[in-house]
Amino acid sequence: MGWAIALHGGAGDIPFSLPEERRAPREATLRHCLDLGVAALRANRPPLDVVELVVRELENSPCYNAGKGSVLTTAGTVEMEACIMDGNTNNCGAVSGLSTVVNAISLARLVMEKTPHIYLAFDGAEAFAREQGVEIMDPSHFITPENIERLKNAKEANRVQIDYTQPIKANSTNDQGDSQIGTVGCVAVDNHGNLASATSTGGLVNKMVGRIGDTPIIGSGTYANPFCAVSATGKGESIIRATVARDVAALMEYKGLSLKEAAAYVVEKVPKGNVGLVAVSANGEVTMPFNTTGMFRACATEEGYSEIAIWPVDSNGISEDSQK
Amino acid sequence: MGWAIALHGGAGDIPFSLPEERRAPREATLRHCLDLGVAALRANRPPLDVVELVVRELENSPCYNAGKGSVLTTAGTVEMEACIMDGNTNNCGAVSGLSTVVNAISLARLVMEKTPHIYLAFDGAEAFAREQGVEIMDPSHFITPENIERLKNAKEANRVQIDYTQPIKANSTNDQGDSQIGTVGCVAVDNHGNLASATSTGGLVNKMVGRIGDTPIIGSGTYANPFCAVSATGKGESIIRATVARDVAALMEYKGLSLKEAAAYVVEKVPKGNVGLVAVSANGEVTMPFNTTGMFRACATEEGYSEIAIWPVDSNGISEDSQK
Repeated sequence: MGWAIALHGGAGDIPFSLPEERRAPREATLRHCLDLGVAALRANRPPLDVVELVVRELENSPCYNAGKGSVLTTAGTVEMEACIMDGNTNNCGAVSGLSTVVNAISLARLVMEKTPHIYLAFDGAEAFAREQGVEIMDPSHFITPENIERLKNAKEANRVQIDYTQPIKANSTNDQGDSQIGTVGCVAVDNHGNLASATSTGGLVNKMVGRIGDTPIIGSGTYANPFCAVSATGKGESIIRATVARDVAALMEYKGLSLKEAAAYVVEKVPKGNVGLVAVSANGEVTMPFNTTGMFRACATEEGYSEIAIWPVDSNGISEDSQK
Repeated sequence: MGWAIALHGGAGDIPFSLPEERRAPREATLRHCLDLGVAALRANRPPLDVVELVVRELENSPCYNAGKGSVLTTAGTVEMEACIMDGNTNNCGAVSGLSTVVNAISLARLVMEKTPHIYLAFDGAEAFAREQGVEIMDPSHFITPENIERLKNAKEANRVQIDYTQPIKANSTNDQGDSQIGTVGCVAVDNHGNLASATSTGGLVNKMVGRIGDTPIIGSGTYANPFCAVSATGKGESIIRATVARDVAALMEYKGLSLKEAAAYVVEKVPKGNVGLVAVSANGEVTMPFNTTGMFRACATEEGYSEIAIWPVDSNGISEDSQK
């Protein structure tokens, strides 16, 4: 039993041909954030602080789809959402529809700690942010040239869309295969078994205005209880239908599965290509399964195991991009 | 195995002294809605249609806290939310932050059927409502004199509130004890085992603007899968922390409990006074447990069992207000 931490920067159809200039900064950010989280755990900071700290850093990186770097709605706006949960108490906080708040995850924590509610959204969440004096920026701060291009591509690919039910197809000539990817999350456990989870996202490229995904939904994108902490990523609608994060915990609690067994079972039952998750258990186990092409991910344990990877590791547990 | 239906009009601290003029119209509405649902099931309408139909009728009644009759935010506005889920497919739709839509539950169904998303909120949800041409009314349509008075009382009782973390106390000289009650919901199963759940609410009196409760959260206030359909009511924040609706289903799926055992287990673990739920299973079982003083509720099964009640029934299964 010892501390453990795992984080992700999104699961999806990440092409093996991902250009070096897109891959390198993302790996560097994963490494930096992992180091930050490990240092905080070693300094005995509570897991709730650790996951908030790490997710803030991921939000601040423009190469992931959360905070600065969030993808755009069909109206070209950002609508960010986030969720944080404490395993011991089941206390939690969530926010949706943010357009000016630099760190959505910290506002989610303030909702948890400073209101009688769990979840604030849109104008009410923005008003609460002003009242609490958190850092805000003009909405243009969050919008990167890459995301303007991604929205343009999504709209072009969708040119003849006649109703919302048609899936958004990537435009293969323009899309780099990573346009829908980049939700960020972190789970951590200290060596007393205290658990916490945090997730933050800009959502889906070309999403309808007002769309809420799995990230802020307790039990779907984010969950922590005394058994484990889970943060999921992928196609939000599939994750909501499968109540992914709660189900990992429920399989441990009600069926006696181990963390790895529970997480594998849940990922298996979600349609292929739709989900990835990171999870840690109270006794310091860590698992990072996904049924997509890849997932930007990193983990470390007190026992000395560490991994930073994008694609599946081979049967020897070694991948080009992994660090053991 | 046969059809079954259960509906609720909210759980909470309903005083046994509830005045006749407040009790009678609520019981009449329960009876009317139960009859409507039973007739629809007997006419072989799909459970998804049945729960939508019944919840629409409950929304249209001013004596419950959903649709017309929704309680007011701290700003004196209505922000309605609703959720619907189909057990066979796990398809679902949800809406929050509505201020003009007459039947939130039907908009939730349109989100499910006409968009690639599950959940739309606030301005985006209102814009989608316009686009779909659903019935809308001026926000004043939803506001009843009783709810203006309830908000006034809540604010007076809260006069010296210095931060949001202080609970809102009812003002005993003015409050009739039912100010926080009235979320509505319906679950149904047909005699082929098809299940559906629907929930709709105005939320909490004096809630912060932008607050989202348990109702639209898949797995918390609303859930259906091939095992059962569940609609919960009570203190939304407690219901979210306990992922009440999914947990009833998860205990059946992962622990092999019966519907009644699963529902009783979940209600027991939520803090007393915080939750009630109605649920039906694929084989036509029905249960309506609560740990509050009372819950407005009604049910019927193909086998001929029927109940309309507010407070607990005595050890003989008989209560003053029940119909067997």
